[in-house]
Amino acid sequence: MEIRRTTKEKSRFLARAWSWLKTLCCSFRAKVIEFAKSIEELGKNDPRRIIHSFKVGLALSMVSLVYYTRPLYNSFGVAGMWAVLTVVVVFEYTVGGTLSKCLNRGFATLSAGALGFGAKHLASLSGKNGEPIILGILVFLLAAASTFTRFFPKIKARYDYGVLIFILTFSLVAVSGYRVDEILVLAHQRFTTILIGGATCIIVSIFVCPVWAGEDLHHLLVSNLEKLGNYLEGFGGEYFQNLESSEEVVVKKDKSFLQGYKSVLTSKNTEDSLANLARWEPGHGRFGLRHPWKQYLKIGGLARQCAYQIEALNALIKNSDFQIPPELQGEIQQPCIKMSAESGKALKALASSIKTMADPSAANPFVEASKNAIKDLKVTLKAANLSTSNIVNLQEIVPAATLASILVEIVKTVEKTFDAVNELANLAHFKTVEATVSPELKVQPREWLHRGSLQPVLDGNISNHVVIDIDRALDSGENSKENDGNISREISKNRERI
Amino acid sequence: MEIRRTTKEKSRFLARAWSWLKTLCCSFRAKVIEFAKSIEELGKNDPRRIIHSFKVGLALSMVSLVYYTRPLYNSFGVAGMWAVLTVVVVFEYTVGGTLSKCLNRGFATLSAGALGFGAKHLASLSGKNGEPIILGILVFLLAAASTFTRFFPKIKARYDYGVLIFILTFSLVAVSGYRVDEILVLAHQRFTTILIGGATCIIVSIFVCPVWAGEDLHHLLVSNLEKLGNYLEGFGGEYFQNLESSEEVVVKKDKSFLQGYKSVLTSKNTEDSLANLARWEPGHGRFGLRHPWKQYLKIGGLARQCAYQIEALNALIKNSDFQIPPELQGEIQQPCIKMSAESGKALKALASSIKTMADPSAANPFVEASKNAIKDLKVTLKAANLSTSNIVNLQEIVPAATLASILVEIVKTVEKTFDAVNELANLAHFKTVEATVSPELKVQPREWLHRGSLQPVLDGNISNHVVIDIDRALDSGENSKENDGNISREISKNRERI
Repeated sequence: MEIRRTTKEKSRFLARAWSWLKTLCCSFRAKVIEFAKSIEELGKNDPRRIIHSFKVGLALSMVSLVYYTRPLYNSFGVAGMWAVLTVVVVFEYTVGGTLSKCLNRGFATLSAGALGFGAKHLASLSGKNGEPIILGILVFLLAAASTFTRFFPKIKARYDYGVLIFILTFSLVAVSGYRVDEILVLAHQRFTTILIGGATCIIVSIFVCPVWAGEDLHHLLVSNLEKLGNYLEGFGGEYFQNLESSEEVVVKKDKSFLQGYKSVLTSKNTEDSLANLARWEPGHGRFGLRHPWKQYLKIGGLARQCAYQIEALNALIKNSDFQIPPELQGEIQQPCIKMSAESGKALKALASSIKTMADPSAANPFVEASKNAIKDLKVTLKAANLSTSNIVNLQEIVPAATLASILVEIVKTVEKTFDAVNELANLAHFKTVEATVSPELKVQPREWLHRGSLQPVLDGNISNHVVIDIDRALDSGENSKENDGNISREISKNRERI
Repeated sequence: MEIRRTTKEKSRFLARAWSWLKTLCCSFRAKVIEFAKSIEELGKNDPRRIIHSFKVGLALSMVSLVYYTRPLYNSFGVAGMWAVLTVVVVFEYTVGGTLSKCLNRGFATLSAGALGFGAKHLASLSGKNGEPIILGILVFLLAAASTFTRFFPKIKARYDYGVLIFILTFSLVAVSGYRVDEILVLAHQRFTTILIGGATCIIVSIFVCPVWAGEDLHHLLVSNLEKLGNYLEGFGGEYFQNLESSEEVVVKKDKSFLQGYKSVLTSKNTEDSLANLARWEPGHGRFGLRHPWKQYLKIGGLARQCAYQIEALNALIKNSDFQIPPELQGEIQQPCIKMSAESGKALKALASSIKTMADPSAANPFVEASKNAIKDLKVTLKAANLSTSNIVNLQEIVPAATLASILVEIVKTVEKTFDAVNELANLAHFKTVEATVSPELKVQPREWLHRGSLQPVLDGNISNHVVIDIDRALDSGENSKENDGNISREISKNRERI
């Protein structure tokens, strides 16, 4: 009986163990697959990451040669490990990062080594017993003072690593038990190996598929402006179409463009750190040594301003309370769609101007058009006779008014962005685009508007927009400020015809 | 003649040199004074920074003892420098930072050391010529793979330093020219000294005026909520007073509270990194080991939402176009001031509830009052007869409508924040505050509202507000959802009486 029970228990135990092992294997396999997928995704999002990983491997292998090559090993000995250490610690994703760390490390090692050497010499004057005490006090004071400087925002941003290495080297030199003449040999060896490590990093970083922080900042700014532009361009059509919902949209459209702007909200830190690293980089490609990276931060700030307003707008329209009565919608729909679409186009034109480093005046017509849409809206609103309309109370007006007013604010921010990009174009000497239109077509903006030959985008169909490509240098924002009410009234007449 | 000229030139040169030296001295002195001032300011802003600097000095001096004490030096020798290196590299401002770096360094050193030892053994099997090749390949592959894992956001946030040390140690062990038996002695020495350095850091960091990342996150959240609350509380009075400007304010008031919210806009990164560090910290003070730091991030996100809306509002009211006509102002002023002030008070009550870790229901009356103000506003807006008023066109209504509608949105965000803080109170077991009112006063919120004995804050004088202190558990948001139009109408009747 007992034996049988034990056998039964054994088999039961084995079965349980087997099933447990199977589920473990399954979950392990699922995890491995998931992991592999996430690797694939990470690599696909930015293949430069894979390249960077191989670059680190390459630099490390190159430095290892110091060990494997007999003559080099004989001259450096164990100090060769400092080359390995330097490569691992100093190699960063961007060229700017690598350069800043290398330079920081180099200067900090030199200055702290010299200072430590002096401190050791000073302490040795006070005899065998006094030496450790004086050295201890010196290390304490210098470490405390240096650590405190790391709290200064400017030093933290640029020289944090240097200060760290300064404390490290000073302490190591001051504290080390070596005699002074030994130290000199050691310091020479160590500095040479650090130099080898640093030089390897810089060479690999710059010459093997370099990742420039400046270029990344450039692309980030462009993509941020594009995201905002996409939202604004799509917003009007999307929102008012939803309201009407007369046409059943069969194919569910991709609405990711309505979420893209969210990443702009929190882009400040990335921009700041990229700009900091970009300052360390030498001139490369289209970017000179003194490229105005600060101006990029200014434009980035304006883009964020715009994103905040979009966020507020987005929060409002998500509300079910936010209903615009039909008669009001009819009044404001066209100017609102136009404001949003034109400022979106302006942002996208600015983005492409920064991208190609061309004169940003291509965005001018859109900025002007969005400004005109504001005037248009004002005229519409002034003309709307409340006493004859069906709108009986103020509450019904609130959503429409809010929508319009935030859009006006967005247009104003876009205008500021336009100015900032113009400033950037001046500072960075963007190339001016040749006039693509023959001189006889160079009409004053006033005339152009009065001719009525170019119909503004008023049909709500954004994809069919008319690209206004008259010489861009002509109609600057200043010229057309006088074209007040009558122009917009003309536009609104045009609209009625459509 | 010539001698005289030379003397003249000499004296002129001396005078010039003297003046140059004087200006140099002056500018140097000015810079030193400026520098001293900025140090003083930095120290005043957060005296813990000065303490931290001394803590680093202390830890370094303590570790230096390894060198100065003869028996310790004899057993560790030069490996003692690893203790110094560890202290400099590992000591961070917060306890969480120090702990995370120490643990990362410890585990990475152990695992990479073992792996490197194995790799060396494996490579040595392939003979003198094959060894460097195999080791080189292994170092290349492992460095590349590890570097790639640093791009995973989760690993980057928590184990970035560990992966770095892993690559470092593996390369050093695999590449080093030592024989295997030497390596074991070296590894033992090195690990012990790293342990000494790490332990020194942890002990100094925890026991000498510790800076807890969790506590910092806690305070940051509280101060962010307070800043928003200050803005909202002050906004109504500030804005509408400016509009009226009948009373001449002689003393220029401190308006810094209107700018405080700006720092909330960009607080995401600080919050994220603090929450990451807080996870490494043991239980301390009022915070348990598994304190729900994630919920802090959620509340922080809602606070940012609120800040975005305030930013949009702020941009609008700065506009000179943004004029509310007097008759409309009279209509909406009271509910708007009330919405803003009450939601501000609610945020401040939530902040103080988080600060003291007490039940957040103290904020409930304010949340309810701000919700009532919304209803009140709706009633006012519905009641406003457009046909009889002097307002002739829509444009005049736009600013008022926008203001009201953004304020409504802010109130809704505050409501969500209230819910999130309630959730936090549940998760972190905040202590419930005893009912401060005797049971016979426990009336249903409906009754309380109908009695009319408690006049809502409607007189625009924010400093004179009535603190409604009925048992807070009573009127939760759910109960009073039915009290729709009639209540608010009653309130608006009250207002008319006032």
